[in-house]
Amino acid sequence: MLKIGVDAMGGDFAPEAAVKGAVAAADRIGADSRIVLFGDEKRIREVLAAENCPAERFDIVPTTEVIEMGDHPAKAFQQKSDSSIAVGFGYLAKGLIAGFASAGSTGAMMVGSMYAVKPIEGVIRPTISSLIPTVSGRPALLLDVGLNVDCKPEVLCQYGLIGSIYAESVLGIENPRVAVLNIGEEEAKGNAQAKAAHEMMKAESERLGFNFVGNVEASYLFTGKIADVVVCDGFVGNTALKMAEGLYRINKALGGGNAFWESMNYENVGGTPVLGVNAPVIIGHGCSTPRAIENMILSTERTAKADFTAKLKAAFNK
Amino acid sequence: MLKIGVDAMGGDFAPEAAVKGAVAAADRIGADSRIVLFGDEKRIREVLAAENCPAERFDIVPTTEVIEMGDHPAKAFQQKSDSSIAVGFGYLAKGLIAGFASAGSTGAMMVGSMYAVKPIEGVIRPTISSLIPTVSGRPALLLDVGLNVDCKPEVLCQYGLIGSIYAESVLGIENPRVAVLNIGEEEAKGNAQAKAAHEMMKAESERLGFNFVGNVEASYLFTGKIADVVVCDGFVGNTALKMAEGLYRINKALGGGNAFWESMNYENVGGTPVLGVNAPVIIGHGCSTPRAIENMILSTERTAKADFTAKLKAAFNK
Repeated sequence: MLKIGVDAMGGDFAPEAAVKGAVAAADRIGADSRIVLFGDEKRIREVLAAENCPAERFDIVPTTEVIEMGDHPAKAFQQKSDSSIAVGFGYLAKGLIAGFASAGSTGAMMVGSMYAVKPIEGVIRPTISSLIPTVSGRPALLLDVGLNVDCKPEVLCQYGLIGSIYAESVLGIENPRVAVLNIGEEEAKGNAQAKAAHEMMKAESERLGFNFVGNVEASYLFTGKIADVVVCDGFVGNTALKMAEGLYRINKALGGGNAFWESMNYENVGGTPVLGVNAPVIIGHGCSTPRAIENMILSTERTAKADFTAKLKAAFNK
Repeated sequence: MLKIGVDAMGGDFAPEAAVKGAVAAADRIGADSRIVLFGDEKRIREVLAAENCPAERFDIVPTTEVIEMGDHPAKAFQQKSDSSIAVGFGYLAKGLIAGFASAGSTGAMMVGSMYAVKPIEGVIRPTISSLIPTVSGRPALLLDVGLNVDCKPEVLCQYGLIGSIYAESVLGIENPRVAVLNIGEEEAKGNAQAKAAHEMMKAESERLGFNFVGNVEASYLFTGKIADVVVCDGFVGNTALKMAEGLYRINKALGGGNAFWESMNYENVGGTPVLGVNAPVIIGHGCSTPRAIENMILSTERTAKADFTAKLKAAFNK
């Protein structure tokens, strides 16, 4: 049985949105998977009852505290030891669940990732990534999207490997093409960081075992033509992500919807995986709707099923 | 008489597109303005004849050479001394024209900007900028968009002043709001560069004379809600611009046109102004259509009429 942990208290509309999302996901996860809800048992049962969903479909781990968005992440993680996030990470660290997802405090989720499940040995800096839709039909992976805003080339080079393993094992993309986000196709283009990352990936990718294809310009990010995995520092990646979100919202307000733009909707993206730590962790938008939570849970299950963490560990310890 | 210099030989479809664009612009520029075409006189006259436009509407400065896209910019600028770009910059440096626009070699245009008309005293690094459309109806100015990919905070701080003067004098935006592009609203957010730029602008903007409003996230770039002038390094700015272009193309291919997206069309943007040098210089896309050239010429006229350069010099030498 694959147990997928979900923070029922995370997000602006918790526990309603989280529990409703879990109910929807329960219909779609594998027969051998089971969702474990962490949170206020009484309230969780109330939402399940309102949804006409038997509570037996879930494991419920009762917790009494909630880390709020305004809390200091590190302090709250320590002090609110019976919070849904802290208890969830306890389960994850002990292997009682195979992955943990929350739309709650991003900061606390990062604290849990770094201090409870911890970085994989050999990973200099874990990263957060985002799936980006492309018109080719299959998504690309952008990383880092905000955790490490100033990256050394060796960190970006590792992101190439981490992203490649994720794209292959979780997204099912064979021999994924890894590129550096840059402002020109030519090797000598870019700022000091992009040039150094390009150089290092060119020299190291074969040994590390990923398919480096060079630079990709942002104009090609959403075409899927050049790359399946796009590496950049967290400042640039977060800017790209926020810009896409902004344009998505504008487009939606203007009534310009279509399948491509709809795929840009964060609700469909399935959260932000934390990569490079010892277990699958996925962070959702604070404003997650039930559908966003549902997709986040499915994406957590997919990551756990793909045995991504084991593959990553193996790659960093060969 | 305000003379606006236009490179008739610049761009992938020169001289046809350039001359056709000039013909269209001639109908729209002020009665006191006149377009000066630099290029192959015979070919210019042929296009004008084909357009049924009397050649007398223009000044024509005959040149015999063309700097090609493949040429080394600095070498070609020097060696092809009778090229349309080199001759155009000669006129500009001597004040025989009030501005110069070309869709030709960006590199050669930059060489001309830096070595023929030269940076304004006090400007550490000139910059290239781009108008970005917003749903508020009035454009914002993004700078730098690719010239300086690694920027010191004092350079970014100057961009705030340069952008502010451009927005006020050329775009007619009163007391323009200047912001640092960043990944959070809070002062302490961002990478080392953005934090340092924020700090310096906060300390210096009042003395320098611009209205610093803090950080702007990329999700708000196209809303116009936060800022009229957005400052970032050329790596981030170029990435944002290219991403917008890519999404524009995707949106167009998907048939998702509307007025907002149409305003994203580079043909309507009017080229990329080089700011911080001693005369108005505007660089167009290599693939400029007549409409793109037309708008580039009008934008050059607007910059010259606004007396932008004089205002910039005054600001840097008070």
